[in-house]
Parts: sequence; C-alpha cells; structure tokens
Amino acid sequence: MSGWLAIAGLGPGDEALVTPEVRAALDQATDVVGYIPYVARIPPREGLTLHPSDNRVELDRADFALDLAGSGRRVVVVSSGDPGVFAMAAAVFEALERRPDPAAFDIRVLPGITAMLAASARLGAPLGHDFCAINLSDNLKPWALIEERLRLAARAGFAMAFYNPRSKSRPHQFSRALEILREECGSDRLISFARAVSTPEEELLTTTLGAARPEMADMRTVVIVGNPATRRVGRWVYTPRRAE
Amino acid sequence: MSGWLAIAGLGPGDEALVTPEVRAALDQATDVVGYIPYVARIPPREGLTLHPSDNRVELDRADFALDLAGSGRRVVVVSSGDPGVFAMAAAVFEALERRPDPAAFDIRVLPGITAMLAASARLGAPLGHDFCAINLSDNLKPWALIEERLRLAARAGFAMAFYNPRSKSRPHQFSRALEILREECGSDRLISFARAVSTPEEELLTTTLGAARPEMADMRTVVIVGNPATRRVGRWVYTPRRAE
Repeated sequence: MSGWLAIAGLGPGDEALVTPEVRAALDQATDVVGYIPYVARIPPREGLTLHPSDNRVELDRADFALDLAGSGRRVVVVSSGDPGVFAMAAAVFEALERRPDPAAFDIRVLPGITAMLAASARLGAPLGHDFCAINLSDNLKPWALIEERLRLAARAGFAMAFYNPRSKSRPHQFSRALEILREECGSDRLISFARAVSTPEEELLTTTLGAARPEMADMRTVVIVGNPATRRVGRWVYTPRRAE
Repeated sequence: MSGWLAIAGLGPGDEALVTPEVRAALDQATDVVGYIPYVARIPPREGLTLHPSDNRVELDRADFALDLAGSGRRVVVVSSGDPGVFAMAAAVFEALERRPDPAAFDIRVLPGITAMLAASARLGAPLGHDFCAINLSDNLKPWALIEERLRLAARAGFAMAFYNPRSKSRPHQFSRALEILREECGSDRLISFARAVSTPEEELLTTTLGAARPEMADMRTVVIVGNPATRRVGRWVYTPRRAE
C-alpha cells in the first residue's frame, strides 16, 4: 500500500508558526482528519477531503485515519500546537497498538509550536529554567493524581505550564488547583494567563497567585506559574537560568 | 530608535522546521548574533553581518545584541530549538534587567521547535502525558538540586526530557543521574536517546534504564525517560494519554 499518515502540529494559530514540513505534508495530502476548529484552518482545495470531527472522540478519529491510510490515502491528522503534547499522536499510537499489523502503516509525526512555548515567547521567558507541563483535565486521570503532581512539581522548583485548565464541565477544579499552588508556592508567586496566543483573540495577563482568579482561564488559555526566582522586567516575565 | 531585537529559535537543524516567522525576521535583519554553530546555519547575504561567539558567554552576547539594537540595528539572536527552553531568551532578559531603560528596547521572542519535541516526534509520542524538562548541566545550579528534581519528577510520574545530559567537562554526572533514575523508576523503564534530530547525524536509540549506558548520550543528545505506562508499539515509543 502507498498510503501514509502524518500526525501534524499546526502551532497555536498564526499561519507564520506552521512549519514548512507541515505545510508540505498538507500540500501532498488527500485527506485531513481532526477536531472541527483545527480542520477549519485548512483551506479547501480540489483533491483534498476534510474530515472534521467532534472533541473527545480521539480514538475513533485515530482509527478512521489509520483506515484511510491503510486504503492508500495520504492522510494528515491535524492537532493545534504540537501533536505530541496533549494532542493526537498518543491517540494514534493507542489505536495502532490494537491493530494486528502496526508495522504495515507508514506513519510520521511532524512537530509544531506547542501552546506553552508560544505563550512563553509572548510573555518573555518564564520557562527559562527546568519546568513541567501538566494537563489539568481529569477526563483521563484521577483528580487526586493531578493534585499530587502539582505539589511535587512545586516542591521540585519547576516552573509549570498547565494545559486545559478549565472547562464548563469542571468549573471548580482550577479553583482547587490555585488553592494548592498558593499553599505550596505562596501568594507572591507569579502566574501568567495566555489565551489564544498568536490569534486575533490573544490576551495576556500576569499577576500573583494571591490575586489570581479561576475566571482568568478558559479552555483556550495556557497557564504558566513561575518558579521561586521568576520575575518581571518591564512588561516581560522571565525565569533566570541560574538556581541555588 | 528604530532598531529591534528578535530572539529566535531555529529548531533542531532541518530548515523545514524553521517557522516562516523566524525566516521573515532573518530576512529583515542587519545582524545575527549567536553561538558559532547556530550562526553557521544562516546563509550570508549583502547587508547582513554575522556575529558568531563562543559557548558560555551568553550574557556578554545578550549585552552585545542589546547594544546593537539600541544603536538602531535590526538584530536576530539565534538559538537552536526554542529560545525560551535552555537557550538565549532568559539570558537576554537577565541582561535587559541590568539596563537603566529596559522599556526602550523593541524586543520579540520568536518560538521554535525545541529539541525534546523534535525528538518526541521521531520516537513516537513519549511525552504524550504530563512531563518535565530538566537541564542536566550543573553550570548554573548545584548538582544536589538536579538529583532532588530527578527524584521528585520520578515520584510525580512525569515523563522526563533531559537537555545537555553529558559533556567532556562533567563525564560522571549522567552516570549518577542514571543510577538515581534506576532507583526511582526501576530497571525496566524505557529510555530513549535522540541525537542531532533532523540532521544527517541523527541517531535514535531506545532501551531500558537497566541497559542504558552513559556513553549513549553526548551534548547533542536529548534523553527522554518514559513514565510507568510508556510502551513500545512496533518501532515507536509512546506514553498513553490515560493514567490511573
């Protein structure tokens, strides 16, 4: 079979942040598969079929994409940001693992600018020292594990980037996360809210944990909490490279 | 003054992984400043002055770039990967903080594909669940802090990406890091060595902590250690999205 599957990251929104590698794969594709708002970023053209699907159907979408590639199509599964960070790549490999013939598929993963790095660039350099990335959604893990991770990450002195901090279906958990962070890091620690970075809806806000409110985040926000040394210089936020 | 400073990420090496945003900044620049091998990636052209400098002079380089921008030049400071991840952005803000007039500078940070995400894409999706990034060099922090972070990160169940795992000047520390990881994670945990990803010298190796040897890494290697659920499927390594 001559079909292939590319799992590609579209970056945070601005087309100037899409890599030439991803652009080339899209140009060669016969099919684009992904969550509705990400597929909406792909301009229609003759010979290209767009397959938008709803949220929370990642495994079905991955299976569908594997089936298309297996039938000889050239398929790009699109994620926003980077496909390997809380996005479609893991889902495709989960689906692949259930197949009798995983080696039969021609698969590539094409990296992209993930949201925390786009946010970090706009803010300055808040991830300039050791850091961690945590998905705050408890769709796929128990909330108790998230709480434990927040505490250990704070004790390790990591700067922290949070994906999916808040949604309508779980309005209270981000409030609880902020409580835990205040306990572990104190009220003066810097926290930044970066919403829809690189799009016309971009909003940036930096404050302290003491002044942070859950409403400052929604599902389009990446939240970055500094480490004990994170500071402001002018309108920027950065974490020094040095630690004691 | 009409000069500006862009702190840009060139990605891991392949020109197809340089964003159009970074390409545009380079096209408009009068000066490119950076570590010798990164500046060597920029094609010379009329009107562009290249300023390569040696390693470990990040603050001097940042000051030099600020001086150039302050004098009206259009300056791009280049890093490999992403400028905000163990690269030049934090150094520029450190230098900026010492200036009497930080707000006078027109600064932008332009994100890039950082090494761990390029490595993750080549390997599959080893960072598909919560993860952390740790710089294993103790140039700017005590080794004891690194050991403590490794232990806490392991206990938090993070997948881990290590930058600068090993150099000639500190040949024994990565060996010690592997010992700690074996103690905390056991011998069967998957570890991947991704060297010079996206360049002609690219090498990928996945093994277990029990079989890992310090010599598998050098300064061009990013090391990724999985979480307890990280597994292989065919030639790929991935971390499932779900955790218990």
